[in-house]
Amino acid sequence: MTTLEPSKPWEDLSSLLESGSRSGVKSFVEDLHAGELVRAVSRLDEEHVRLLLTLLDPEDAAGIVDQLPDQQAAASVETLEPEEAALIVQEMPSAEQADLLREIEEDEAQAILLAMDPSSADEVRRLSRYASDVAGGLMGTEFLSYSREASVESVIKDLRANSHRYSEYVVQYAYIIDKQKRLTGVLRLRDLLLSPPTRRVKELMLPKPVRVSDEASLDELRDLFDAHSYFGVPVTDSSDRLVGVLKREAVEEALAERSDNDYLKSQGIVHGEELRSMPLFTRSRRRLMWLSLNIGLNFLAASVIALYEETLTQVIALAVFLPIISDMSGCSGNQAVAVSMRELSLGVLRPQDIWRVWSKEVLVGFLNGVALGLLIGTAAWLWKGNPYLGLVVGGALALNTMVAVSLGGTIPLILRSLKMDPALASGPILTTVTDMFGFLLTLSAASFFLAKLAS
Amino acid sequence: MTTLEPSKPWEDLSSLLESGSRSGVKSFVEDLHAGELVRAVSRLDEEHVRLLLTLLDPEDAAGIVDQLPDQQAAASVETLEPEEAALIVQEMPSAEQADLLREIEEDEAQAILLAMDPSSADEVRRLSRYASDVAGGLMGTEFLSYSREASVESVIKDLRANSHRYSEYVVQYAYIIDKQKRLTGVLRLRDLLLSPPTRRVKELMLPKPVRVSDEASLDELRDLFDAHSYFGVPVTDSSDRLVGVLKREAVEEALAERSDNDYLKSQGIVHGEELRSMPLFTRSRRRLMWLSLNIGLNFLAASVIALYEETLTQVIALAVFLPIISDMSGCSGNQAVAVSMRELSLGVLRPQDIWRVWSKEVLVGFLNGVALGLLIGTAAWLWKGNPYLGLVVGGALALNTMVAVSLGGTIPLILRSLKMDPALASGPILTTVTDMFGFLLTLSAASFFLAKLAS
Repeated sequence: MTTLEPSKPWEDLSSLLESGSRSGVKSFVEDLHAGELVRAVSRLDEEHVRLLLTLLDPEDAAGIVDQLPDQQAAASVETLEPEEAALIVQEMPSAEQADLLREIEEDEAQAILLAMDPSSADEVRRLSRYASDVAGGLMGTEFLSYSREASVESVIKDLRANSHRYSEYVVQYAYIIDKQKRLTGVLRLRDLLLSPPTRRVKELMLPKPVRVSDEASLDELRDLFDAHSYFGVPVTDSSDRLVGVLKREAVEEALAERSDNDYLKSQGIVHGEELRSMPLFTRSRRRLMWLSLNIGLNFLAASVIALYEETLTQVIALAVFLPIISDMSGCSGNQAVAVSMRELSLGVLRPQDIWRVWSKEVLVGFLNGVALGLLIGTAAWLWKGNPYLGLVVGGALALNTMVAVSLGGTIPLILRSLKMDPALASGPILTTVTDMFGFLLTLSAASFFLAKLAS
Repeated sequence: MTTLEPSKPWEDLSSLLESGSRSGVKSFVEDLHAGELVRAVSRLDEEHVRLLLTLLDPEDAAGIVDQLPDQQAAASVETLEPEEAALIVQEMPSAEQADLLREIEEDEAQAILLAMDPSSADEVRRLSRYASDVAGGLMGTEFLSYSREASVESVIKDLRANSHRYSEYVVQYAYIIDKQKRLTGVLRLRDLLLSPPTRRVKELMLPKPVRVSDEASLDELRDLFDAHSYFGVPVTDSSDRLVGVLKREAVEEALAERSDNDYLKSQGIVHGEELRSMPLFTRSRRRLMWLSLNIGLNFLAASVIALYEETLTQVIALAVFLPIISDMSGCSGNQAVAVSMRELSLGVLRPQDIWRVWSKEVLVGFLNGVALGLLIGTAAWLWKGNPYLGLVVGGALALNTMVAVSLGGTIPLILRSLKMDPALASGPILTTVTDMFGFLLTLSAASFFLAKLAS
C-alpha cells in the first residue's frame, strides 16, 4: 500500500494523512529515517502537520516531535490546540519538554502547561527556569533514587514493578538520598546482583559521589566529561538536593549545537538556526539585520577610498587591486579567527593568552604576508611594467596581512573577555579594520610614489 | 607544595617535572581541569612532554593522552620511544588507539604496533583499516559477549570475576553470539536479576537485535540514533559477525567534530585542526595553500575591472563602490551557504532538493537585494548628487544579491552531489563568481550611462 517513493516521501505522507489511515501513517513514519522524516515534515503544510500529530497516538507523535530540530518542533506543536499539544508534550523526556516550550510562543506555552497534568507541568516549569546551557537546563529528571535505608530486596522489587517505565531511563546507577533529598551515594545496579536481599543499600553504595551544581556552565561540564569517562553525573541544587541526572550525550549535543551556532553566526545567521521551512519574511528580516550592519561598516571602510579620489584618477590600476587587498586580508584574518574560535571552544585558550596568540600569529602573518605580497606585487609589475606599482601593492598587502592575522587571532579573545560573542562580532570588526587599513596603506603609499606611478 | 597558580599552571608543572616527583606530578595533573591540562601541555617543550608521559604510570599517562585533541596527542606520543609509547597506547580505549595511530607518522606508528602485545596490536590494525567516519572506525571493542548456551549463573560468575575490567565498559547489555560469532541476541543485564540461575541466556535474550554494518556512514548513524533512544548498538561485519559496539556518544562526538571541521574549512583551515602549539612553518604553509588558491581567484575576478579602466577613469566614484559590492554580495551569499550547510548536516536537505532551495532563496535574495540596493543607491545619489550613480550602483547590488543568495544556497548541494566537500569549496567559488558578476554589472551599467555619470 505504501509505495515508498524515496525522493518525495511527503507526497505519499500527505495522501495517507488525507485518507485518515492511522495505521498507514504510523507504519509509513516508522519506516522513514530521521533525516527523511524531518525533510518530509518540513514539506507539509500546517494543516497536514496538525493531522499527522493528532492522528497518531500521543506517544508516537511525541517520538516525531522529538526528532525535529527545536524550531521546527515548536512550529509543529503550535499548529495544535493546547490540550492536544499537552498530551504529546507529556510523552517527551523531561529535558526535551523544557527545550520545546522555550521555543514556543509564551502564551501558547502557558496554555499547554495549564493543560498538562499539574505535577508534570511543575517539573517543566522548574526545568524551564534554568538557562539552556547550564547543567540544570541540560539534565533529565528520569532517574532512580532510593532512600539510604532501602534493602536490596525492596530495590529489586521496585525495579521489577516499574520495569516498563524504567526501561526508558537507560540507567545503570541508582542514586541514594537522605531524608532531606540530599545526595549521599550512588549504587551500581549490577552490585545488586551480587548481594544478599536483606543488605541495606547504604552499605552497598559508593559514598560521596561526584556531582555537579545545577548552575554549572557548559564549559565546566565539558571539562568534567573530558577528564572522566562518566556516562552521566547527578546534578544537585544549592542545598545539595538531587534534582536531576546529566548524561554525557546531552553535554556532547549541547557542545555540537554551540559550535554549529558559532558557524552560523560567523556567516551572519544570528538568531539560532534558520530552516527553509520558516516564513519568507522572517528569514529575510533576520538576515537583513546583519547585512545592514555590515553595509554600514562597508561604507566606513570605503570612505577611506573616497579621500584619495585624486590619486586613484591618476593611477586607475589601483582600483583593480583594492578589492583584492580587501578580500585577501579578510581571508587571512578569518583563518586566524577560526583557529582562535576553535581553541576557545576546546578550552585550550583563555582570554589572558592574548599576547601568546599575538606572538604566534604575527609570525604566520609575516611569512604569509611576504608570500602573498610577492605574488601580487609581481603580478602588478608585470601587468603595467611599473615596478613601483608592484612595490606599492605588494608592500601594502604584505603589511596588511600581518595586521589582519594579528587582529584575527586576538579579536575573539578580546570579545570573550568583554563578555561579547566572538562568533558574531569577530568577522565584521576584522574586515572593517583591515579594509580601512589596507585601503589607507595602498592609497597613501601610491600618493607618496605618485610621480613614479602616474603614466 | 603544589602552589596552584591558575594562570600559568605549566610553569609549576615544568618545575615539578624537573624535580622528578612522580606523586607531585600525578596529583597536580589530577587537579587540573581538562581544558587547563590541554593548555598546560601545549606550553611544555618536547622534553617536558616526554618527562610527563614517562614519569607517570602508563595508565595515568594514557588518561592524559586521551584528553588531548588528536593532533596534540599524536605529537606528545611521538616524543617517546616506541616501547614507551606502546605501554601507554595499550591502556587507551580501542577506538581511541586507532584514532591516535592514524594521526601518528606511518613509521613511528608501525614501530609502536610492533612493541605492543600482538593481540592488542592486531585489534588496532583491524580498527585502523576502517575510515574514521564509518561505524567500524567509531566503534569500540570493549563489550560483553556470551554464547547462546551460557547459563545465567555462568554469566554472573564471569561478571563477578572480571568486574574490575568490565567496570570500564559502561555497559548494560551483553551480546549473545552463535558458534560462528554471528550476533543472535541481546541480553539486558538487569534481566539477570530476575531470573533463576540455571536459565540459558538464549531464553532471556531479545532476539534479532538492531545492528549496524561496520561500513555504515556517519549520516546513516546519525539518522539511526536520532530515530531511536539507543545508548549503543552492536556493529557487525559483512558476515554478520559481531565486531564491536558503537556508542551514541561516539556518533555525537564525530558529528560535532565534522561540524567543527566544516567551520574551520569554510574559513580556510583545510587540514583538520590547527593548534598554535604546532610548528610555525607547518601552520604558515597549510594556511598559505588556501590563500594562494584564493588570490588566483581574486585575480580572475579583478580582471573584469581591468577591462573597464576607461569607464572607471571617467567615473572614479565607482572605485569606492566596487569593494562594497564585492563584500556585501559575499556576505549575502555566505548566509545562504551557512543555511544549506546546516540543513545538509541535519539531513533535512538532499542534493536533489536544489530547485526547492533555489526557489526559497531567490525570494530572500530579491527582498534583501532591493533593501540593500536602495540603501547603497541612496547613499551614492546623495554623495555625488547624481541619481544615475545611485541607479547604477543600487541596481547592480540588488541584482547581484539575488544572484549571490541563489548561488550560495545551491552551490553546497551541487558540490555534495559531485562528491566534493561543500565546506571547503563553497566560499571561494561563491565569492569569485559573485565578484565577477558584480563588477561586470556595475561597470557595464556605468558604461551604458557614461554620458550621465561622467561629470
